[in-house]
Amino acid sequence: MISTETLWRDIEAIREQAPLVHNITNFVVMNTTANALLSLGASPVMAHAADEVEEMVGLASALVVNIGTLSQMWVDSMAKAIPAAAARTIPIVFDPVGAGATRFRTESCLRLMGLAQPTVIRGNASEIMALAGAQVQTRGVDSGAAVDDAQGAARQLAHQWQCVVVVSGASDLITDGEALWWVDNGHAMMPRVTGLGCTASALVGAFCAVNDQPLTAAAHAMSTLGICGELAAESSVGPGSLQVAVIDALYGLTREEVERRLRVRG
Amino acid sequence: MISTETLWRDIEAIREQAPLVHNITNFVVMNTTANALLSLGASPVMAHAADEVEEMVGLASALVVNIGTLSQMWVDSMAKAIPAAAARTIPIVFDPVGAGATRFRTESCLRLMGLAQPTVIRGNASEIMALAGAQVQTRGVDSGAAVDDAQGAARQLAHQWQCVVVVSGASDLITDGEALWWVDNGHAMMPRVTGLGCTASALVGAFCAVNDQPLTAAAHAMSTLGICGELAAESSVGPGSLQVAVIDALYGLTREEVERRLRVRG
Amino acid sequence: MISTETLWRDIEAIREQAPLVHNITNFVVMNTTANALLSLGASPVMAHAADEVEEMVGLASALVVNIGTLSQMWVDSMAKAIPAAAARTIPIVFDPVGAGATRFRTESCLRLMGLAQPTVIRGNASEIMALAGAQVQTRGVDSGAAVDDAQGAARQLAHQWQCVVVVSGASDLITDGEALWWVDNGHAMMPRVTGLGCTASALVGAFCAVNDQPLTAAAHAMSTLGICGELAAESSVGPGSLQVAVIDALYGLTREEVERRLRVRG
Repeated sequence: MISTETLWRDIEAIREQAPLVHNITNFVVMNTTANALLSLGASPVMAHAADEVEEMVGLASALVVNIGTLSQMWVDSMAKAIPAAAARTIPIVFDPVGAGATRFRTESCLRLMGLAQPTVIRGNASEIMALAGAQVQTRGVDSGAAVDDAQGAARQLAHQWQCVVVVSGASDLITDGEALWWVDNGHAMMPRVTGLGCTASALVGAFCAVNDQPLTAAAHAMSTLGICGELAAESSVGPGSLQVAVIDALYGLTREEVERRLRVRG
Repeated sequence: MISTETLWRDIEAIREQAPLVHNITNFVVMNTTANALLSLGASPVMAHAADEVEEMVGLASALVVNIGTLSQMWVDSMAKAIPAAAARTIPIVFDPVGAGATRFRTESCLRLMGLAQPTVIRGNASEIMALAGAQVQTRGVDSGAAVDDAQGAARQLAHQWQCVVVVSGASDLITDGEALWWVDNGHAMMPRVTGLGCTASALVGAFCAVNDQPLTAAAHAMSTLGICGELAAESSVGPGSLQVAVIDALYGLTREEVERRLRVRG
Repeated sequence: MISTETLWRDIEAIREQAPLVHNITNFVVMNTTANALLSLGASPVMAHAADEVEEMVGLASALVVNIGTLSQMWVDSMAKAIPAAAARTIPIVFDPVGAGATRFRTESCLRLMGLAQPTVIRGNASEIMALAGAQVQTRGVDSGAAVDDAQGAARQLAHQWQCVVVVSGASDLITDGEALWWVDNGHAMMPRVTGLGCTASALVGAFCAVNDQPLTAAAHAMSTLGICGELAAESSVGPGSLQVAVIDALYGLTREEVERRLRVRG
């Protein structure tokens, strides 16, 4: 189980090493994702051209693939980047935005996951259930199901792909198919900011870059974002200021705040 | 004519139903558009791939098409989404960003509008005049004309396409070709924030999703954004903080503020 | 050498003329770049379609080309826009984001620069060294070298392309191959905000649009952004609020603040 000790060790490692996190992500969140990684201490790069993704992966310490505004060409680039990352054995984080909403999304996910084992899959309950083959309709990109409903699907998916699965929601579930942890950090206003789930995936990439235990790294990422969301909510009057304050909180996070706020269950 | 009563009914409906608004919009505003819709209470989805737009439209309560950073492939996807929305009779909001600035923009607009009657067209004065065939040069994406100058063009366009036309500016004009309303809400700093016009179009989509009278829904959207702009300006020192505060204001808007501030003319 | 006098003359010219700055830039920074230009007083347009870039360039007072999230199609559009700008003799600002990180980036830069002399090239130390053919590895899009290391490369590049070269960093270096100036404005937190380098390039475009001396215009742009970064840092608690406050500062900048803060060396 994670603790202030283990989490803070990773944050210090990110701040010292500034790992390069290569993101192939969606248009909606590129700015906020890059800013979240920079504020945490990582070094983000956004690059999606088929002509360069393999070479860029060669420089990176983690690859984060997010299909939020996918199109065929972008999926083809992701399909070049993923095996390149696997060949270098750097962590691969996969964010199946809107899986279950359209066939194109679900099928693109299965195609990409089939190319190389992801290290971590992070989605909302609907997305994880859709990937596990459950009959669920994702309502656009927002979940139509609760995290609890996705518990079986998450375990199944983790077993099937031999990876860690994160289901984010009011409480976040993290499992490798055997262990199953809950992170209770976060704030009710967070789902009203677009793309904080995508930010979570990017942070998972940064933590995996400095910690070779993906279950631990993913739990560190989710609790870090949750704690920063709580801190941000205290100085925010709505989702606009919350988005800004989450970035600030990632920059200023102290060990004391982690110690005071970390809420995880085994 | 709209009133606090009619406007507030729609806001409560959006907050309760969280209608899914499918946006095919430009890269500049995707983040702020999604956040504005989330803060108001709607559920945004951004999806533009030819492979999925028809299926995504099938889940949506409104389609918003915005050509701000158009390219041929994106226009082709819009050309698939629009008839799909028409077939389901969900509202279609069309934002002709930069119409009149280049032939490609003007011609793409006419092509898209020819595929299915838009429910609402929202643009600035130059854009509306360009669509009506008036000799006007749009200066990039900013208007080179005043709203008053576009009054005839707006009426003509509304008649021609049997739709509602919104011309936004210092005061916003809303017409279905017969009735002609003015919304006097807003703040002089708003044009210094990129994409608040695009936000307006997205909000028109959300209001049309819960109100089948497009003239009323469009007036509700424009006055809501104008009122939130006024509220935001009170706590802002420049366009950066204004952009953030508008999102906050959409989240926190109360009936009392609407009552105090709503300024419309028939 | 620049002074408060020369800088303030340009700022007033931008605020009065609102020059149209055509940006073909990356997805990460489109929103913040447009907002920075609007706040300064310029009129931004983002347009990248091969079908319209030449016509849009025909309306613009400056062209800013930034390869941050390049792909083949975007480079092809840049390759149409650049000669069109050269034919009209409007200033061309080139931002070689990530040059040296991948062959595709370095080669695309050389292809684009070969089409027409840029007016100003602005990059970080690694990027400028990579363009000058030095053996340096750009680490993603962040510099792996200090500005001092790039002094020779900057001079060489300026001679070779007969243009002005800006190397941004803790202090910014600006040279036309002969004169070499340093701008010492700025704040240590600025590199933690994504895309402030891209903002710098866009501001160089705005200043070049009103000042036909590119060396002076580039120094004005770099010191303006640096001063606004200092002002912003005073009211910010992290990179999130800094990004917002920089936009505000560009809007509210006064001659008094310029006078108090401008720090340049010949």
